[in-house]
Amino acid sequence: MASIDAILNTIDANLPASTKRLFDLLSIPSVSTDPAYTQHCLRAANWLADELKGLGYSAEVRETPGHPIVVGHARAKRKDAPHVLFYGHYDVQPADPLELWRSDPFAPRLADGKDGKEIVARGASDDKGQLMTFVEACRAFEANGGLPCSVTFLFEGEEETGSPSLPDFLAAHKAELSEPAIALVCDTGMWNASTPAITVMLRGLAQEEVIITGPSHDLHSGMFGGPVLNPIHVLAKIVADLHDAEGKVTLPGFYAGVPELPEDIAEQWRNLEFDERAFLAGLGLTHVGGEAGRGVIEQIWARPTCDVNGIVGGYTGKGSKTVLPAQASAKFSFRLVGSQDPKAVMESFRAFVRERLPADAKAEFISHGASGALQLPFGSEALSRARRALAEEWGKDAALVGCGGSIPIVGAFKRDLGMDALMIGFALEDDRIHSPNEKYSYTSFHKGTRSWARVLDALAG
Amino acid sequence: MASIDAILNTIDANLPASTKRLFDLLSIPSVSTDPAYTQHCLRAANWLADELKGLGYSAEVRETPGHPIVVGHARAKRKDAPHVLFYGHYDVQPADPLELWRSDPFAPRLADGKDGKEIVARGASDDKGQLMTFVEACRAFEANGGLPCSVTFLFEGEEETGSPSLPDFLAAHKAELSEPAIALVCDTGMWNASTPAITVMLRGLAQEEVIITGPSHDLHSGMFGGPVLNPIHVLAKIVADLHDAEGKVTLPGFYAGVPELPEDIAEQWRNLEFDERAFLAGLGLTHVGGEAGRGVIEQIWARPTCDVNGIVGGYTGKGSKTVLPAQASAKFSFRLVGSQDPKAVMESFRAFVRERLPADAKAEFISHGASGALQLPFGSEALSRARRALAEEWGKDAALVGCGGSIPIVGAFKRDLGMDALMIGFALEDDRIHSPNEKYSYTSFHKGTRSWARVLDALAG
Repeated sequence: MASIDAILNTIDANLPASTKRLFDLLSIPSVSTDPAYTQHCLRAANWLADELKGLGYSAEVRETPGHPIVVGHARAKRKDAPHVLFYGHYDVQPADPLELWRSDPFAPRLADGKDGKEIVARGASDDKGQLMTFVEACRAFEANGGLPCSVTFLFEGEEETGSPSLPDFLAAHKAELSEPAIALVCDTGMWNASTPAITVMLRGLAQEEVIITGPSHDLHSGMFGGPVLNPIHVLAKIVADLHDAEGKVTLPGFYAGVPELPEDIAEQWRNLEFDERAFLAGLGLTHVGGEAGRGVIEQIWARPTCDVNGIVGGYTGKGSKTVLPAQASAKFSFRLVGSQDPKAVMESFRAFVRERLPADAKAEFISHGASGALQLPFGSEALSRARRALAEEWGKDAALVGCGGSIPIVGAFKRDLGMDALMIGFALEDDRIHSPNEKYSYTSFHKGTRSWARVLDALAG
Repeated sequence: MASIDAILNTIDANLPASTKRLFDLLSIPSVSTDPAYTQHCLRAANWLADELKGLGYSAEVRETPGHPIVVGHARAKRKDAPHVLFYGHYDVQPADPLELWRSDPFAPRLADGKDGKEIVARGASDDKGQLMTFVEACRAFEANGGLPCSVTFLFEGEEETGSPSLPDFLAAHKAELSEPAIALVCDTGMWNASTPAITVMLRGLAQEEVIITGPSHDLHSGMFGGPVLNPIHVLAKIVADLHDAEGKVTLPGFYAGVPELPEDIAEQWRNLEFDERAFLAGLGLTHVGGEAGRGVIEQIWARPTCDVNGIVGGYTGKGSKTVLPAQASAKFSFRLVGSQDPKAVMESFRAFVRERLPADAKAEFISHGASGALQLPFGSEALSRARRALAEEWGKDAALVGCGGSIPIVGAFKRDLGMDALMIGFALEDDRIHSPNEKYSYTSFHKGTRSWARVLDALAG
């Protein structure tokens, strides 16, 4: 096998051709949410399958109830080479509002940005540019004797609409897709322009709606106010009781399975260049809320929450109306970490609510889904190798970061394929994804490709 | 002067003619809220002024920015006779939905009801029938030598739309209208079909809307949840804190000016035929809520409340949305009794809210008005005389009742004319006011007229 240096040299030499290929893909307006672009989504899928076939891999455009999924297979020469699944998506957000673009969103161009050259187009960063860093890394291996790992490619076309067809697709093709030991997911970002990142924690999410009913119908608050139960008061008491004075969630058993951060990770996070005051100022805030004594990063990445995302009851229009409402409702969400059990949290919550219902109050529950946190074990071998590879490319350690939100596809890999995911991407915070003038740093594209080459090489050992 | 028996005999003898006159008034569709009926409102006003003039009184239809107000004056022969102001309204609610009426709402008729004859028409009970009981009582006096009290008549045409023109009218005609010692208001009801009632307490009302702001804009609850202040939580805590475990309002100073009920009134209320269980069952409830140890009647008539009439924040549509809202708001109302000071309550409330704002939370307040409770002093001479008169007519004591809601006109008399009101009416709970097939018991009309004759006689001493 060729040395990694040879691979990297090939990547450097081919950068103009790689960029041209990316521009071809970016020029296809594969907007998944708008039926008017359906044929363009199919074009993008075919384009990707052709690319994979051009590299000598098997590749098929598979139909789904929505936009097709591209599945490709590439075998490493070495029989005992590790096998990875690479995931990306070829669909993009709509380009609207068009008038805010400085150039045609589907006529990609290289522009001079404040931090160097940028690729400007819808999908440049989310996710076509990121996806192509991996494909171009594979191409460099093919020019130098072949891949060090076997790769299953999975490119979907519905990520921007919530991946509705993906879970069934994974289930239907489980035998074919579950052979890889780990998934590589490229839909994430760098810590900052000079610091790569590996996302190792995603919070889980359990969502419950509660409808509290008091009297059988709305009543006049003058004629009935006093002896009649007000369901808004009942609901408010429940919400108020859910946190203690220190900002901790009071649900019994809630913190079971919530680990304290390993000291080395805590240390790394403390040393990340993160300006809490600037972060808060951007939100119109000056104080860190939530759990007393814990910082912004720790709370968002590694601590569970309980938040009311919506509450409504009675009259909410302009002015006043003297109504005692029959009902009040709220939507609760619990962000979960570690090994917190979503089902146990939801059951504890329902019991908590029921215990607080006064005589005559009733509670109805609607579940809006629940999934546990995902965490790549800090001690995993794949993680160590990827860290080493990224450190070599960027000259500094990769930040091991969390993500406060969920990435449904990563949950699906875990749930449906039993597969952990290594989330590595080179997007930057200012890439304007989903917004006009989306861009992808030319450095991200170039060094991202080099990074994937190093990661594949490292994973092969 | 003629004896009261002579007056009552005249009333009995004239009942058919009185009924015919009421039918004339009921046949005028004086719907105040619908501009299509403006001319009918004017017709009703003119009809009333003509009636008063027909009795030998001065009467004028006075213009307002809305529907006119009829003002009439009648002088008692006795120079030292007391002077009363009689208030009623000639406007009615729309008759819709018309298809639910068993006869034309503006073609009044006598029908057989479950408790005897009924006058069926829009406005029969609210308020034309009640208003005419007083006019017909005056007519009986005129047939027997004249009124025992001087009377100022005030008939408005906008009660069903909130009396928008009345406060300015009272202010503009204060000298003319404030001579009477007391107002007689006929827009209330009996305790039950055999028990008259005098409404002696009206709760006051202070309304405050609060808007709590946290972050400067809505945020993703995954990406930001934990360290970011959630204004729904802040608001819920405030709502929860407003009542203690015994159902008492916790605002500092809230109960200043809240009297305990005089024992004789408490005793009368305990002896009223009131089925708490049936009342609650009608609302889908089984337990008396609110202040521990206090019954339904006491709480609605004589105790203050704090109720949230509406609350809203975040996402309230179907399904879920992982949003951390920038704002949450609630509309609060305080029912007031005794000499509670609405201004002090509102100030205490605002301070209470401000004290509970964590760092970075802001509160904006919108006042939706405040007025104190109204109470006719239990020891008042006019009240004693009216009680005696009603007891003579009905053969049992009048219930001294409260009303949980406010009657704005009574507040206006107190505020603008410095005048207490004696609220006596003969409506029954099942009169279907504001609903199809509104009716007024023929007994209410007949004995109501007799009752007013006795009350005027008693007030004259």
